[in-house]
Amino acid sequence: MVDSLAGIRILDLTRILAGPYATMILGDLGAEIIKIEQPEVGDEARGFGPFKNDFSLYFMSINRGKKSVTLNLKDPQGKKIFLDLVKKSDIVIENFRPGTMKKLGLDYPTLKAHHPSLVYAACSGFGQTGPYATRGAYDMIIQGMGGILSITGEPNRPPVRVGTSIGDITSALFTTIGIFSALRYREQTGKGQLVDIGMLDCQVAILENALMRYFSTNEIPQPLGRRHSSITPFEVFESKDNYVVIAIGNNELWEKFCQHINKPDLINDPKFCTNALRTENHEQLFPILTEITTQFTTDHWVKSMESIGVPCGPVNTIDKVVTDPQVIEREMIVEVEHETTGTLKIPGIPVKLSESPGRIEHPAPNLGQHTMEVLNELLDMDETEIETLKQNNVI
Amino acid sequence: MVDSLAGIRILDLTRILAGPYATMILGDLGAEIIKIEQPEVGDEARGFGPFKNDFSLYFMSINRGKKSVTLNLKDPQGKKIFLDLVKKSDIVIENFRPGTMKKLGLDYPTLKAHHPSLVYAACSGFGQTGPYATRGAYDMIIQGMGGILSITGEPNRPPVRVGTSIGDITSALFTTIGIFSALRYREQTGKGQLVDIGMLDCQVAILENALMRYFSTNEIPQPLGRRHSSITPFEVFESKDNYVVIAIGNNELWEKFCQHINKPDLINDPKFCTNALRTENHEQLFPILTEITTQFTTDHWVKSMESIGVPCGPVNTIDKVVTDPQVIEREMIVEVEHETTGTLKIPGIPVKLSESPGRIEHPAPNLGQHTMEVLNELLDMDETEIETLKQNNVI
Repeated sequence: MVDSLAGIRILDLTRILAGPYATMILGDLGAEIIKIEQPEVGDEARGFGPFKNDFSLYFMSINRGKKSVTLNLKDPQGKKIFLDLVKKSDIVIENFRPGTMKKLGLDYPTLKAHHPSLVYAACSGFGQTGPYATRGAYDMIIQGMGGILSITGEPNRPPVRVGTSIGDITSALFTTIGIFSALRYREQTGKGQLVDIGMLDCQVAILENALMRYFSTNEIPQPLGRRHSSITPFEVFESKDNYVVIAIGNNELWEKFCQHINKPDLINDPKFCTNALRTENHEQLFPILTEITTQFTTDHWVKSMESIGVPCGPVNTIDKVVTDPQVIEREMIVEVEHETTGTLKIPGIPVKLSESPGRIEHPAPNLGQHTMEVLNELLDMDETEIETLKQNNVI
Repeated sequence: MVDSLAGIRILDLTRILAGPYATMILGDLGAEIIKIEQPEVGDEARGFGPFKNDFSLYFMSINRGKKSVTLNLKDPQGKKIFLDLVKKSDIVIENFRPGTMKKLGLDYPTLKAHHPSLVYAACSGFGQTGPYATRGAYDMIIQGMGGILSITGEPNRPPVRVGTSIGDITSALFTTIGIFSALRYREQTGKGQLVDIGMLDCQVAILENALMRYFSTNEIPQPLGRRHSSITPFEVFESKDNYVVIAIGNNELWEKFCQHINKPDLINDPKFCTNALRTENHEQLFPILTEITTQFTTDHWVKSMESIGVPCGPVNTIDKVVTDPQVIEREMIVEVEHETTGTLKIPGIPVKLSESPGRIEHPAPNLGQHTMEVLNELLDMDETEIETLKQNNVI
């Protein structure tokens, strides 16, 4: 069995979430990820809670399978070692604010001159060009600027943050796609290139129907709470004991549903007989349906809707998600063994490949855990040299 | 200039959002996408509003650059044509409910026997295996079952839907990554494989810190409205005229911020002097800061925070997003010309590659627009044969 990215070596300068999430995926699929970290400090995420025996579980969850090498990129010797490692690598990835690599004398033009077939991926808040290029950004800023905050929340109430760092994660996924794309181009042409991902760009790319609704009507899309903007009923209802999602995408399902709940009169009701009318008259339909959904438990609804083929599901809290039989069966929660934290649960690999499934080889590394191994194997340095570098604070 | 996916032909059986979004990205990057649609009906999304001159803008926004071929896969002749097209293609992708392709006699084992190096990608609600495999699912169901609904919303209020179909879109991105991965494996080994993406798996994969918080504390993560779970202040505040996001990720920024707002006493306040304390005492800190943020406009805050290096941004509504100078400069809103709808704005390509940037070649196709061209060029059929197929409702 060969991994998809077997033989690919990535020098990973990324920190926190977007970059490390991308290299996690690439590592899961078989690339060798050498995480270059600042001596003594390392990736800031090592300081983010929750912790177990002083090890950040947050860091653990997105840095599994990587090697950690400490290297002071501000030191001339550190720079030289970095350039030597670049020569031995296929890809460099960083998620600094644009300009940082230039200040270090290690920007893409410099590295390209040194290693023309290098793929250089940069993931930043706003991309490498444009008026905001050098501004700092975090996920929350991007969720705000990119529009998703303005359409997430209850009507006439303050905006709500998406409960996960979707700005970081979608840009991590687009960065991964960009890297695969550049790799394929390199394999066809021998040429490297710059992969320039801006988190704000990625947010625009995922707005889907909000964008098209605005362009066609000039009406500014508003937050709609727990329902879909143009399909009805397609929303979260209260049940007797919790909440339940019922998603009725067409008239055939609408008919089945109305028969099932003993409300056949709704089927041809002139206010509700088409999806467009149901959406328009949502305010009248919602209380009618809620009166019915609150009579039974979520479990009852999930089972009975399944029996008539209407898509339906619970609103699972995280404890339910991680013990869900489907999630378990699909190996989406896996265990890793770590020397200081013991056995830990982390998310599995969502890209399921029949022939090259990848693997989670080892847990996240301690800071500098592989410095010796990498400098020795890739650059032929011996113990004495490495000890001297350590004394000079280069590694 | 060569595109990253030059020479790759994809038979695209996908409908609605997750699958078409994946093939949109692959098409943008240079793959030839042949969208196989049911005669007369086509992709259901052709019926989703908004419309312009009867053409679905929703369909337009995620099907640009593709070719449309109508083909009745239930007809024996249609099946034969499909199998002939498979032979001439690199990838088949579908997002049917698992079992549908088997019923058609066109599941992966069948196609693999016919064309061993084929990459077969299936994107479904729950994946091809496990107890829920054959259940139907839509984005909303997956947002509910995957946990994101339970952590999105205001505290002690009902769950809120993420304002965009994040369940579909993240699985589209993982499907794209899976396809690139399988392509690389094929190029190394000559072997095809099955790419099996489950939307629920993808939701688990993006829960990030909610998952780790639960595993470490056994406390069930709750919705937190508009703030971050473990960084404070890192949230949406009211301003004099709107909202503003202020994201203070460390103590250095906290000091700068407190000095700037003339509240130096907060810096070392025993309730607020570390991030952990600020998070713990959020309920006390929030009104103190809101009193200050509401004194000035969002514009004022964005400019003044930029001057002291504190990440800050507006909560843009969609009209502001699409006219933002950075979004424009990065070509994230582009125009396409379509014969019946005229000039349309659609989202651009977020994967910015310096050497193989891809392109949006033409707008979304009319139903069956390329049937003649594809059957003629790939299968050498002549006009008479094609006319007969049409009369027999095969195409």
